[in-house]
Amino acid sequence: MKIRSVSSIEKWILQKIYTSIGRPPIRLALERGSEVGPTDAEPVASVLISDWSTFTRLLLNPEIGFGDGYTEGRIEVEGDLVILLETVLRTMKAYDAKNWKSVLWSRWLERIQANTLDGSARNIHQHYDLTTDFYKLWLDPQLAYTCAYFPTMSTTLDEAQLAKMDYVCRKVRIQAGEKVVEAGCGWGSLALHMAKHYGVTVKAFNISKEQISFARERAKRENLSHQVEFIEDDYRNISGHYDAFFSVGMLEHIGAEHYRDLGRIIHRAIGDSGRGLLHFIGRNQLCPFSPWIRKRIFPGACIPTLRQIMDVFEPWDFSVLDVENLRHHYARTLEHWLSRFEGSEDRVRKMFGSEFVRAWRLYLAGSIAAFRVGRLQLFQIVFAGSECRRIPWTRAHLYTNLSPAVKEQKWIHARS
Amino acid sequence: MKIRSVSSIEKWILQKIYTSIGRPPIRLALERGSEVGPTDAEPVASVLISDWSTFTRLLLNPEIGFGDGYTEGRIEVEGDLVILLETVLRTMKAYDAKNWKSVLWSRWLERIQANTLDGSARNIHQHYDLTTDFYKLWLDPQLAYTCAYFPTMSTTLDEAQLAKMDYVCRKVRIQAGEKVVEAGCGWGSLALHMAKHYGVTVKAFNISKEQISFARERAKRENLSHQVEFIEDDYRNISGHYDAFFSVGMLEHIGAEHYRDLGRIIHRAIGDSGRGLLHFIGRNQLCPFSPWIRKRIFPGACIPTLRQIMDVFEPWDFSVLDVENLRHHYARTLEHWLSRFEGSEDRVRKMFGSEFVRAWRLYLAGSIAAFRVGRLQLFQIVFAGSECRRIPWTRAHLYTNLSPAVKEQKWIHARS
Repeated sequence: MKIRSVSSIEKWILQKIYTSIGRPPIRLALERGSEVGPTDAEPVASVLISDWSTFTRLLLNPEIGFGDGYTEGRIEVEGDLVILLETVLRTMKAYDAKNWKSVLWSRWLERIQANTLDGSARNIHQHYDLTTDFYKLWLDPQLAYTCAYFPTMSTTLDEAQLAKMDYVCRKVRIQAGEKVVEAGCGWGSLALHMAKHYGVTVKAFNISKEQISFARERAKRENLSHQVEFIEDDYRNISGHYDAFFSVGMLEHIGAEHYRDLGRIIHRAIGDSGRGLLHFIGRNQLCPFSPWIRKRIFPGACIPTLRQIMDVFEPWDFSVLDVENLRHHYARTLEHWLSRFEGSEDRVRKMFGSEFVRAWRLYLAGSIAAFRVGRLQLFQIVFAGSECRRIPWTRAHLYTNLSPAVKEQKWIHARS
Repeated sequence: MKIRSVSSIEKWILQKIYTSIGRPPIRLALERGSEVGPTDAEPVASVLISDWSTFTRLLLNPEIGFGDGYTEGRIEVEGDLVILLETVLRTMKAYDAKNWKSVLWSRWLERIQANTLDGSARNIHQHYDLTTDFYKLWLDPQLAYTCAYFPTMSTTLDEAQLAKMDYVCRKVRIQAGEKVVEAGCGWGSLALHMAKHYGVTVKAFNISKEQISFARERAKRENLSHQVEFIEDDYRNISGHYDAFFSVGMLEHIGAEHYRDLGRIIHRAIGDSGRGLLHFIGRNQLCPFSPWIRKRIFPGACIPTLRQIMDVFEPWDFSVLDVENLRHHYARTLEHWLSRFEGSEDRVRKMFGSEFVRAWRLYLAGSIAAFRVGRLQLFQIVFAGSECRRIPWTRAHLYTNLSPAVKEQKWIHARS
């Protein structure tokens, strides 16, 4: 065997990495060293690797190697980070679920991040209790940390978050006087919106201490404490009987092994006559969720397919009434978040340091890319129990009048 | 053991049957014999059994026993047949999938009615080739034999079938000049509607000889033969490349073991850049489809759950964009069909005899009941390939303008 020069080994490894991500039209270069890139086009962006240790980490585990290398500043991107990630996602095959390294890694993460009652509390604390002041820097004033709904191309983020709240209320057609339960209520914006604009009473559950205390303060300030009760507890401890169940952005955190259990809890809460809505990030095919995101950003996260989510509905004879895929609305929501985040970069750096800024930039940019290319989806599912009498005749009411006061209500009433 | 009198055995069997269907508020009586019924309310309708052989068949297999007994005139219903069936479906548990009799029966039907190429041809011929003149008696003038869409409560059946055709075209946003393939085209109404109102070219497949020749005649008459080609062939033999795939009311006939294969055929037809729509009868939970319907009305039929249908989408990275459950629209469609069918009773009797009239009345009435109570669902699923650039930004366009000419088209275009 011939001993190759360092530069030819470098080149060989670079080619190996480049091929493993599907040879996208980007430039991949070692600082003061070799580079690879498209031969037939201008690269859309460049990735610069500062040292050999980062370089080998990238070879061993491209996703975590890139994520950690970028976070630590050992990898720099020249050009638009979102475009770079979008370009790579388009050429890279979905993270290979059968690869033994992926399987081992995934099992290990599942084990240490398991969503037991304690595990969920730990996982949620790590992300959502980062301090409300941090999220205030880049979310909308309502602090809605989920996909917004943009009725038109000119809708602002603040309007779109309100439009989303209205949209989900109208999808389920909640009525004044009804009782609603919400699982995973964030900073409470939806629960308060429902109470204020739809006249329902709400019990809203969340295991993030910081979010719940913020939500309670807000309810007091807005004189809605008599209508909305914020409960610092796990969704598994929901008790009582309700007309409607909502969960917006919590399903990603509960783990596939708990979907059947979630169905049981929903059925216990709304029986056969209720209805509800699940809003969650989903995917087209079963494969492990981004290992870097799970390791560094969302411990315990699990992104379901529609097939998996049927575990919630099937055992209880719930009818799926409406599924809408809003993934492009999530890409747009994230574009707003990233732009506000960049605008607050200095303040975030003072709070958590520059590695945090870089990691979160990568998380937000990567999410935009994933929703744009369809690696991630955003599903809203409306469902109803087998005895539910409140099924709208068509979906036209969602689009004909965008104020919360829906005058004309047409229900499907049973004949008998 | 005491020997009971005939009447006490009768009573005991009647109670047994009555309990097996969940003790609904109906009266169950043997002519000139015993009867059972609700003790605390007036029965909503009565079932009269004429003889002991029908009676024992009912005990051994309530669904087939009732279906065949009613068909032969050995069982009469006093009161509204739909209300009776709806009442029973509300109290009767879903057909027990684990019962050994059900399993054997289901396996046997699956075997003799298997949807091989030949089997499908036989199964479809048995129902759809009954003669077009028969269907003309009770369908709308377009001969659309699938769930209609009623935008308002006052929409007529004829309008609702047109509205449905428009609705599915707009859900997929087909554009002038595009190529569309339709699997299972019935008498051709949708394919012709698309060509005429949306300016697309269509290849439409169907294995019913009678339907295809009717559709070809109609295309000639309407001068659309240059735009629409009707092909007498199985969906498995679809070739060529298209922008959009449609299947309205065929999935119920292909069998669960063929869903993956259907996905492969769709992917072969539209690739990663196309989109499409599946419209089919579904159910909330997996359990064998009504054995009487499978035996007497729809041989080879199989009603999927949403979970099963994911076999079509998942392997090809198709994104589910929109699922709508229109089961109450199917109940209303069937109400129109049943009422027209009853109005043509004499002519149908002359064509096929009185047992046929009774069997089809039961099939139509039973279907109304099943959709009303949620034993059956009607799903429309819009999906798109991973590279599709024609995803509407919202669904508002479906409701803001009901003419086929949609002027303002907003697409989600990829940035790169």
